[in-house]
Amino acid sequence: MKSFKPNLYLALIHYPVLNKHGEIIASAVTNLDIHDLARAARTYDVRAVYIVTPLTDQKRLVIQIVEHWTTGMGGVVNPDRKAAMKLISVQDSLESTRADIEAREKMRPVTLVTSARECSEFRTIEELKLQAKDDRPWLLLFGTAWGLADECMLQADHVLKPIYGVNGYNHLSVRSAASIFLDRLAGHP
Amino acid sequence: MKSFKPNLYLALIHYPVLNKHGEIIASAVTNLDIHDLARAARTYDVRAVYIVTPLTDQKRLVIQIVEHWTTGMGGVVNPDRKAAMKLISVQDSLESTRADIEAREKMRPVTLVTSARECSEFRTIEELKLQAKDDRPWLLLFGTAWGLADECMLQADHVLKPIYGVNGYNHLSVRSAASIFLDRLAGHP
Repeated sequence: MKSFKPNLYLALIHYPVLNKHGEIIASAVTNLDIHDLARAARTYDVRAVYIVTPLTDQKRLVIQIVEHWTTGMGGVVNPDRKAAMKLISVQDSLESTRADIEAREKMRPVTLVTSARECSEFRTIEELKLQAKDDRPWLLLFGTAWGLADECMLQADHVLKPIYGVNGYNHLSVRSAASIFLDRLAGHP
Repeated sequence: MKSFKPNLYLALIHYPVLNKHGEIIASAVTNLDIHDLARAARTYDVRAVYIVTPLTDQKRLVIQIVEHWTTGMGGVVNPDRKAAMKLISVQDSLESTRADIEAREKMRPVTLVTSARECSEFRTIEELKLQAKDDRPWLLLFGTAWGLADECMLQADHVLKPIYGVNGYNHLSVRSAASIFLDRLAGHP
């Protein structure tokens, strides 16, 4: 198989996402999501992890956590965590996230949605790697709460096939799902 | 490749584990570890997930959390979580964990240690699958805090190769590491 290794970016979306009734909400940031995604990202050579939320207090919270582990005492006592947390940044929206990547890479990213929900046109990682025609970076979107709102799904270039378990069970945590997708994407050179 | 699918068991060890100074401690249980491991275990058809701690208050905490999601209101409002959390049980020690598996399976499990630490005799999952000669169940041990104490490592039959990232970075959360090991073991039929 062609050994295609795109520059990878992750975004963890807190708005627009769904609640259990299918209504659009802004979810609260979870501290362990930031740590787990940063550590997995550092492991698999992801360029940046965006925590996406338009809420001022939530953005402030993320910045405080990241500063503790990068410029603060956390980074002094745990340099490995510092190396991971340096990858985290905050964005207001999916659009500003894509603009940031475009500014860094001088190319628009290919946006890939990961979702546990049904969709008619799933793509597998193997298909996307085989069909990649250029050096565009890949942006993987992960939703919080009950998943990404349709307006987010519709902005993606492709929908990745969910991780199904026995009897179709697909209710992994976003921490687990992101880790497994990264391992499948970049863990087997 | 031979399509070998062992009955899988997980144990998350909270004693004996190491603190950052290399001293043996009992770590505190983390709520999200229980949820994430249960959900990943349910996804990949793991038979049971053992939360191993000898501390009475910690055992009580785990039982309260699990009961909320199985016999309590949590299970009513979220049946998918209930299906995952039913896999959790509590054990005092690695030895009692192995005895429980032996009672269920009528065979002693093959105990596999996963560790981010260096070791001279790593085995890969592919090697173990190819060399499996019998139907013994596999028990995967994961350590909390700064990893499993030597006395735990020495009781294992094999040490699995850690998940290395770029430049040898191997500091995944136990939630990420367990998810990735399960996907590599059971996610590609």
